[in-house]
Amino acid sequence: MNLDPLDDLILDETTKGIPPGGSARLLDIGSMGWNLVRGDVPLPAAILRESALDHNSRWMQTFVGKRNAVIAPHVKTTMAPQIMQRQLRDGAWGVTVATLHQLKVCRRFGIDRIVLANQLVGRLELDVLVAELTASPGFDFFMLVDSPDGVRAASEAVRRGGAKAPPIQVLVERGYAGGRTGCRDNETALEIARATRAAPELKLCGIEAFEGLLRPGNGGPADAVSTFIDEIVTLFDSCVREGLFERTPPIVTAGGSSFYDVVVKGLAGSNAQTVTRSGCYVSHDSGVYQAEQQRILAATGEPVGLVNALEVWTHVQSCPEPGLAILTAGKRDFGTDSGLPAPLLISRGGELPEPLIGCEIFASNDQHAYMHYPASAAVRIGDRIGLGISHPCTTFDKWDVLFLVNDDYDIIGAVKTYF
Amino acid sequence: MNLDPLDDLILDETTKGIPPGGSARLLDIGSMGWNLVRGDVPLPAAILRESALDHNSRWMQTFVGKRNAVIAPHVKTTMAPQIMQRQLRDGAWGVTVATLHQLKVCRRFGIDRIVLANQLVGRLELDVLVAELTASPGFDFFMLVDSPDGVRAASEAVRRGGAKAPPIQVLVERGYAGGRTGCRDNETALEIARATRAAPELKLCGIEAFEGLLRPGNGGPADAVSTFIDEIVTLFDSCVREGLFERTPPIVTAGGSSFYDVVVKGLAGSNAQTVTRSGCYVSHDSGVYQAEQQRILAATGEPVGLVNALEVWTHVQSCPEPGLAILTAGKRDFGTDSGLPAPLLISRGGELPEPLIGCEIFASNDQHAYMHYPASAAVRIGDRIGLGISHPCTTFDKWDVLFLVNDDYDIIGAVKTYF
Repeated sequence: MNLDPLDDLILDETTKGIPPGGSARLLDIGSMGWNLVRGDVPLPAAILRESALDHNSRWMQTFVGKRNAVIAPHVKTTMAPQIMQRQLRDGAWGVTVATLHQLKVCRRFGIDRIVLANQLVGRLELDVLVAELTASPGFDFFMLVDSPDGVRAASEAVRRGGAKAPPIQVLVERGYAGGRTGCRDNETALEIARATRAAPELKLCGIEAFEGLLRPGNGGPADAVSTFIDEIVTLFDSCVREGLFERTPPIVTAGGSSFYDVVVKGLAGSNAQTVTRSGCYVSHDSGVYQAEQQRILAATGEPVGLVNALEVWTHVQSCPEPGLAILTAGKRDFGTDSGLPAPLLISRGGELPEPLIGCEIFASNDQHAYMHYPASAAVRIGDRIGLGISHPCTTFDKWDVLFLVNDDYDIIGAVKTYF
Repeated sequence: MNLDPLDDLILDETTKGIPPGGSARLLDIGSMGWNLVRGDVPLPAAILRESALDHNSRWMQTFVGKRNAVIAPHVKTTMAPQIMQRQLRDGAWGVTVATLHQLKVCRRFGIDRIVLANQLVGRLELDVLVAELTASPGFDFFMLVDSPDGVRAASEAVRRGGAKAPPIQVLVERGYAGGRTGCRDNETALEIARATRAAPELKLCGIEAFEGLLRPGNGGPADAVSTFIDEIVTLFDSCVREGLFERTPPIVTAGGSSFYDVVVKGLAGSNAQTVTRSGCYVSHDSGVYQAEQQRILAATGEPVGLVNALEVWTHVQSCPEPGLAILTAGKRDFGTDSGLPAPLLISRGGELPEPLIGCEIFASNDQHAYMHYPASAAVRIGDRIGLGISHPCTTFDKWDVLFLVNDDYDIIGAVKTYF
């Protein structure tokens, strides 16, 4: 991959977070001498701590490497080519995307192994894909099918592409009752696998599943995932017995950001190439994934875990009642779908941040957050508050540019997203 | 205002919704001959129906004009200069923004009357504002104060700006207990008004309030708003009696997208220039504001109301269980903070959409929506579904570009946003 398309990118004050009054190349922002808590950029602003990104990217590579698996990080989380480059540099097998738009962004930056973790539909969309595959012989691409209609639509697109169109590499998606996409049982999945094998326009390369939304059974969510992965292994073995796979080794891919430990454990005994797909690990968070991480560390005995890299910084705009502060960041600046952000840090007068104790965000509007603070916190108008968020995907997508900072909040770079 | 900065804007497939395989000037997209339901653009895509935008923009002008009020639409909703131009052309008095970033975008496009409906804090932020005012004598700008700290910070910024810096035009913000920003009672607000009058760096031009989040009293939310507006009038009269206002006529601004009828009625007897600030009316929606609109029509006797202009279009990706369809749009494509979207329309095989009856979105993930459909709906993989949304602000901000369509879904333009 390469970052060439970023070379000429100029930013100015029309991009949220960029200081008014001039313009700068994205790649020059790290050398402007700006510091976040000193007030060199307007708030709200989103930051990524480089030391944490670096740690997390290596941590995950080590984690899957020790367990005979690889990772194709779901880059829908960040949609930031600069972060993708870091993940690939640190050993990621490829990347995962959710949509054709995300696929095209990754191709623009020269990524040559992509899992589209969905069944692509739409004539235009499939034709674009086939054209991309036809023009790019080295592009190792996989997408999902979960139905005869999906098999048929993909096959027809390859036929429309003409003699030079290569077969589409396909993974059969196994789902579960009450879940999202995917065949509901192994019998149905096996039928789709046979239909794929029979279609000359498609090449059956493995099995895909997404366990991240499984509801807990009696033994808790990890047990439900474990049972589900056992069924995937059974399906995989059935496909092997019938000689359906057209890639060696065939792939089994599963594992979002919550249960990758259970997934790699469950697939360890199979002969598949195990491909995990966590997206959130690279920034991590201060919410749902931090909670999940505690379970993973306890289950695996890993001594060190992921570290939060992502914060949204905001000013205290108003303290209109005792113990109530209104902040200048809201639903346009952080995700709220997995819980409101946590006020972690406070900085006043350009000083390095200190932990903010006993405060809580209890509501948010489009452009404001409501924070309770105890008398001991002595929050004032103009203070800078650093928010930790829950679920990075829905915070990254609020920002065209996030600042890369060192541990002193010096801005050492800027990360462009493509949402 | 002018749209010159859009002249040279080139879009390509890295922008969500733009067809892969080339690039086009934003201003040329309307002449490409694309049609949404014929499949000329990849889904998901967001559209604005021009006939509805046109109707809504004129409707609101007529509504406030008949009631001796003006509107400074809250452009945080769309952050789309092309829509702002339409609103100003149709008679908007100015625009309202929430943040310095939004202010700078509006200034880039030459808007010369702006209400910043917040108390600006932060030394950098205030210095940028003062520099803008100093450089732009014709710029009619207002911001809020709700506290001695706010008065002090704004005054100091003007002093830092030197002899040529003009005073900042200020509105005192009146809030209410349990609400967001603003003085909690008239006594406090009057003190802030006096402090503002006494500060040579500030010019007291009126009163501001935001009633949109008031919780219903015994008489329902409209009664609570009515009572609140009565208090604003009392505050206004007190300021007049003390000779505090430094603008003629002084301004009272209130009125979000839910209760502007109550606001203009309550202020009709005052001698203030009444400035309403609805943002959502221009696109309207199919959710919370459509519900509120019914109340407004009933209360005012207006025979015709606002019409929904905004839809998000998606494919059916999978029908994995009877009655369950998974769609290719999710929390990255539509807002969910005021309710999930409603599946309104279906199109198959390039045909013009028909109403979709009896379907319901019951859940969403980052990139997917879950839809129940009755046996009678006969939904299939590849069908196009048009979603109506609730709360336009949090759907606009998911899109860099929305398509402008005519009633046949021909794409007749593209609308750029700046979030």
